[in-house]
Amino acid sequence: MKTKVNPKAVIVIFGATGDLAKRKLFISIYRLFLSQKIDEGFAVVGVGRRPWSNDEFRETVKKSIQSIASSETEIESFLSHFYYHQFEVLEPSSYIELGNLLTNLDNHYLIPGNRVFFLAMAPEFFGTIAKQLKQNGLADTEGWSRIVIEKPFGHDLPSAIELNDEIREAFSENQIYRIDHYLGKEMVQNIEVIRFANAMFEPLWNNRFISNIQITSSEILGVEDRGKYYENSGALKDMVQNHMLQMAALLAMEPPIKLTTEEIRSEKVKVFKALRKIDENEVKDYFVRGQYDAGVMNGEEVPAYRNENNVAPESQTETFVAGKLFIDNFRWAGVPFYIRTGKRMATKSTKIIVQFSDIPMNLYYNTKETMSPNLLIIHIQPDEGITLQLNAKRSGSDEGYTKPIQLTFNNNCVDCINTPEAYERLIYDCMLGDGTNFTHWDEVKYSWSFVDVISKAWDNNLAPLTNYRSGSMGPNEADTLLTVDGHKWWPVTDRLNEN
Amino acid sequence: MKTKVNPKAVIVIFGATGDLAKRKLFISIYRLFLSQKIDEGFAVVGVGRRPWSNDEFRETVKKSIQSIASSETEIESFLSHFYYHQFEVLEPSSYIELGNLLTNLDNHYLIPGNRVFFLAMAPEFFGTIAKQLKQNGLADTEGWSRIVIEKPFGHDLPSAIELNDEIREAFSENQIYRIDHYLGKEMVQNIEVIRFANAMFEPLWNNRFISNIQITSSEILGVEDRGKYYENSGALKDMVQNHMLQMAALLAMEPPIKLTTEEIRSEKVKVFKALRKIDENEVKDYFVRGQYDAGVMNGEEVPAYRNENNVAPESQTETFVAGKLFIDNFRWAGVPFYIRTGKRMATKSTKIIVQFSDIPMNLYYNTKETMSPNLLIIHIQPDEGITLQLNAKRSGSDEGYTKPIQLTFNNNCVDCINTPEAYERLIYDCMLGDGTNFTHWDEVKYSWSFVDVISKAWDNNLAPLTNYRSGSMGPNEADTLLTVDGHKWWPVTDRLNEN
Repeated sequence: MKTKVNPKAVIVIFGATGDLAKRKLFISIYRLFLSQKIDEGFAVVGVGRRPWSNDEFRETVKKSIQSIASSETEIESFLSHFYYHQFEVLEPSSYIELGNLLTNLDNHYLIPGNRVFFLAMAPEFFGTIAKQLKQNGLADTEGWSRIVIEKPFGHDLPSAIELNDEIREAFSENQIYRIDHYLGKEMVQNIEVIRFANAMFEPLWNNRFISNIQITSSEILGVEDRGKYYENSGALKDMVQNHMLQMAALLAMEPPIKLTTEEIRSEKVKVFKALRKIDENEVKDYFVRGQYDAGVMNGEEVPAYRNENNVAPESQTETFVAGKLFIDNFRWAGVPFYIRTGKRMATKSTKIIVQFSDIPMNLYYNTKETMSPNLLIIHIQPDEGITLQLNAKRSGSDEGYTKPIQLTFNNNCVDCINTPEAYERLIYDCMLGDGTNFTHWDEVKYSWSFVDVISKAWDNNLAPLTNYRSGSMGPNEADTLLTVDGHKWWPVTDRLNEN
Repeated sequence: MKTKVNPKAVIVIFGATGDLAKRKLFISIYRLFLSQKIDEGFAVVGVGRRPWSNDEFRETVKKSIQSIASSETEIESFLSHFYYHQFEVLEPSSYIELGNLLTNLDNHYLIPGNRVFFLAMAPEFFGTIAKQLKQNGLADTEGWSRIVIEKPFGHDLPSAIELNDEIREAFSENQIYRIDHYLGKEMVQNIEVIRFANAMFEPLWNNRFISNIQITSSEILGVEDRGKYYENSGALKDMVQNHMLQMAALLAMEPPIKLTTEEIRSEKVKVFKALRKIDENEVKDYFVRGQYDAGVMNGEEVPAYRNENNVAPESQTETFVAGKLFIDNFRWAGVPFYIRTGKRMATKSTKIIVQFSDIPMNLYYNTKETMSPNLLIIHIQPDEGITLQLNAKRSGSDEGYTKPIQLTFNNNCVDCINTPEAYERLIYDCMLGDGTNFTHWDEVKYSWSFVDVISKAWDNNLAPLTNYRSGSMGPNEADTLLTVDGHKWWPVTDRLNEN
């Protein structure tokens, strides 16, 4: 719940010449500008090592926003708020100069000292920058200061603790906004509304009526030019520790007392606490890792992961993870949450499928066909929408039999133009001081401690790394993970419009 | 559940020169013929007072089926099975001659004495014909004999008992097929499947989770050329006693032990038994009657009911009924079933709307808007489909608020060509000996005894007859019926495709 205000602030982007800024941040700020969520009282300072002028910076920003149709006046007016500051990350004078610039901008735009420090750069400098900002007084103003941190937040629990301690020396927990951009996605935010704003679902949302929940986030792309980063990360740390576990927590949490940041986080943390702990030796029964092999996708041959740029020829990095989570509390005992994510898969799709239990006494059991269970499908991307799969009477000649039907709601059609991008939403949330859709330290801590066990088991080779063909849905072992429970992955390849 | 067989039988249609035969029966039999559900071993005998030849009769049939594209060979082959028999309803020799014809046809088409007697004519002769058929031995064959009876089955409980006794002298209850053509409709038959073949609904299908159920069957047409019949009937007897109460029973019944005719009927009868009895003096609190006034529909002026042909200028006949039913059993105590039906209303629509209760603690209550309840909408005609109205997150600027969304399944698109007509289905059911979708005497008895009280109260003027404008949704009193309970009629004007 947030009040509608137009926050006044300076947004400082560290890594302003980088990829994230160019692809996501400038355009998101521009959309906020066009929709008048931020008005005249804002400035953006791009910080980087390159010796750019304000004009060079503005040219870059202009290129980033050109996909949005708008007038020259709007563009010029927007760009006039952008400033560039060259800096050396370890050099205190760089921060002092930046501080002077910010003070001038505060005066020029009548901004009461509100500052967003957005760290869109290599994670090794997160701690240093935070400390320097503090030591040089940039975070001490009449207004508020907030620091936004991109993933990865550490690479295991100890490194995350170390990073957090460094940042916490300079900023308090409620000033820290840890980005998980999945939490900014329209349909991920919709999970909470679907669950709690509909009287139909809550009575069914437990182990009496739900058989299992499947969360898939598959990509068609390979590692592309991110080999160097990915070799040190892999699908487990890149996707599972954050996005996949966050979606599971939103699906599993108890209804919070209120829909406030604190209450929602508190319920999500309880889910992480209830995650069944597994031993290193058990990891192989709960998690499957895979690495993509060569294959043909869309008619073109694509290389194996080990033949990609900046990837070791004997790389043990997983590009696919499938796992089985159990949330051992009253509501979910016995209900597996299946997750899978990977690169070079058959389709690009992020979907949640809630499979309801079979009916207790199947009145239709003497028909030839097996009846389909009811499914609630939340389409997160690229389609946005909801499908409910039910059974209905089959028309025509085969009377008396049932057939699965799909009731669909396609969100893409409805507010297409107005649906904000994840980053647009998250930047705005941060400016409003709403931390709901950011990750609290407690969540980071519990998710790393869950993931570290898996990671260690794999480092110790307690589970095989299997190859899967590019263009498939992962290794066969990912299917076996479900078939041993009597379940199967539901297809995620259907597009919403085709239903 | 029915086995797939091609039943061999002679279908005898009493009233073969009448409207129902021309509009519905011939074409339904033709569709059964084209889909090979009945094959060469069938004959149709048209019975009427007019001195037609077989050829004249076949010409009439040919006209009735011309809307279906088919080859001349198919048409000729079909028509060759049609025979005409002129008769006098009170004259025994007419029946003896008919019996001879049937025996000849049995021999000719190798039919083992199976006979369907379809009474598609004025109800005053139902009893007479049944007795004559029996007395003259037409129902005594090596095969089976079944009698199909069109509505109305009596005009109150005493007349229904009398009629039933007459028919029962000649036929046993399981030989009697009382038509309620609503029970032949695809989506009415779907009620049972939606309820019992989906694990999601049964746990919610009770007074804890359902607030109220609304059944609307509205027509745009006025009384047309049926003034004479309608003056002796009215909406209560023409629509409520049969169709509306039948739909309520299908929605309210307990899950039957098996999906057999007997078990389903037994559960429906229990619903009728549980219908809250109301005194004549209470009728005004539960039922509203109305009569259409003049108005403008689709740009054209239409007359008041009292100015229609064959309608008395001071007619007290209701063309609209709205009512509130309570089913006083464990499952439904406290849940009103609202029904309404009428002529000259704003739209032609038969829809069932199940309104779920509001969520117990509305986490979103501090928003400006009232949140919509969840609705399950079963579209029966002219659209066929299912809509589930849920709440989702409103995209874009008003974040944090919810909006109603509709998940839709449009049955019209899927099996459009194969969806059988109600009469096609019912004739076939009767030939297969499946009485599930016909009305059992117990149901007729209980529904008349419920309706008779209302009828008497109105005859005694214990409730006003209100006019409503043609093209409206009935008198205001029909709205008040719900507003006193804190409810409202949900619109039924939306077409499924437009959602």
